[in-house]
Amino acid sequence: MNPDPVHQKSTQPAAKIGTLWGIGLGPGDPQLLTLKAVKAIGLVDVIAYSAPDAADAPPSLARTIAAEWLTRGVPEYALRLPMVEPRHPAAAIYDRAAEDLAQYLQQGQSVGFLCQGDPLFYGSFIYVMNRLVERFPLEIIPGVSSLTAAAAAARFPLTGRTDRLSVVPATLGDDQIAQSLARDDAVVLIKLGKNLARIKALLERQGLMDRAIYVERATMSEQRIMPLVQVAGDRAPYFALILVRRMAVE
Amino acid sequence: MNPDPVHQKSTQPAAKIGTLWGIGLGPGDPQLLTLKAVKAIGLVDVIAYSAPDAADAPPSLARTIAAEWLTRGVPEYALRLPMVEPRHPAAAIYDRAAEDLAQYLQQGQSVGFLCQGDPLFYGSFIYVMNRLVERFPLEIIPGVSSLTAAAAAARFPLTGRTDRLSVVPATLGDDQIAQSLARDDAVVLIKLGKNLARIKALLERQGLMDRAIYVERATMSEQRIMPLVQVAGDRAPYFALILVRRMAVE
Repeated sequence: MNPDPVHQKSTQPAAKIGTLWGIGLGPGDPQLLTLKAVKAIGLVDVIAYSAPDAADAPPSLARTIAAEWLTRGVPEYALRLPMVEPRHPAAAIYDRAAEDLAQYLQQGQSVGFLCQGDPLFYGSFIYVMNRLVERFPLEIIPGVSSLTAAAAAARFPLTGRTDRLSVVPATLGDDQIAQSLARDDAVVLIKLGKNLARIKALLERQGLMDRAIYVERATMSEQRIMPLVQVAGDRAPYFALILVRRMAVE
Repeated sequence: MNPDPVHQKSTQPAAKIGTLWGIGLGPGDPQLLTLKAVKAIGLVDVIAYSAPDAADAPPSLARTIAAEWLTRGVPEYALRLPMVEPRHPAAAIYDRAAEDLAQYLQQGQSVGFLCQGDPLFYGSFIYVMNRLVERFPLEIIPGVSSLTAAAAAARFPLTGRTDRLSVVPATLGDDQIAQSLARDDAVVLIKLGKNLARIKALLERQGLMDRAIYVERATMSEQRIMPLVQVAGDRAPYFALILVRRMAVE
């Protein structure tokens, strides 16, 4: 695949370096890939993705979502990320991955980095891209985010008219979360993990427990959707979120 | 297309009513349709979309985005919406559209409502769906939202790690907007229209003018992207937004 000439740095020899592609795959259902993502996957010289760094870990979710289109046998590069929460890998991990991918790009090979959801919405692609953007042409294909995928799966009208929406990690402090809940029309709580019990208590205190919908693994085969009040336990998996509105969109 | 039996109301005769589909089309580039959206467009009995209600108005944007797939000659229904800002049509307009579409559904025909972006993210589909959800099976296909499409087009890392994001209509008051800007890591200002000058002044006062990126018609052929400080004039078109972060994602 030829790098897009429009985005070539004028200081780089145009024909000799590869383009880095951030390819959004959507939330999990392979049918939610865009036409553009499918096309890019079929054209790049190297496929990259993040994967859990553990011997007994499940395979890369991004690779699994795109598997149907990975039939050409091009080289694949797995960025191994530690699975411990809060999942903020050391900078050195991204430094090394960026240098590894730079080798391909420098040789004129295009690299397609597969991203679950959208590349620039809480994605590890950002940290790879930040390290390469000054040196190589970059193209980003947006994807369906977990935000709207969860709303669609739950048939939960997210925002209308002049609503204010916020996306709030459950890892923030009680005061910060309460502030968003009090002020914004729609709030999506993400990164629940071990904060689930605390979030439940907080929603209860704000009188919002009955208005909160829990969505786990939206659009995947193991999808679970239920009123938060029916969710047992104190922990939630990584791919779970809560949708809440004080009032319905009308 | 047979309605999905899982979502049939048990009180309805399963074989005789049609399913209402909300079909997200993404931000404007026809290549950003999902595989699932293309498939649904090819199967529904009736295609619906909103369109400007004015003699000299441009055609329906949703229809234009999906045009390549609208080749079967199925009946089409245009929901005519007034083009005046702030674009909150009277309830009677949606009442009538819902009743018109209910006629098809009642006869067992499936209706695919085409939605620019995502159906449940500031979409007029919500108001149609709210009026039909109790009576007919419903399926929603999420789409790439303008939010992540604008970020991708501008190569603007939107959110990382434990960032808090808010989506804020420029039609809100200065205090509300200033509150979001002071508190959230990433803010996306939408519905700029005639509020552009006010938003510029507000960002200037908060010292954020140099960190704001203006994106107009993301992924469409008329796309414009530039630092907000370079945007002339006091008005912006409807499909424009501003991306702002106090600090880059690192």
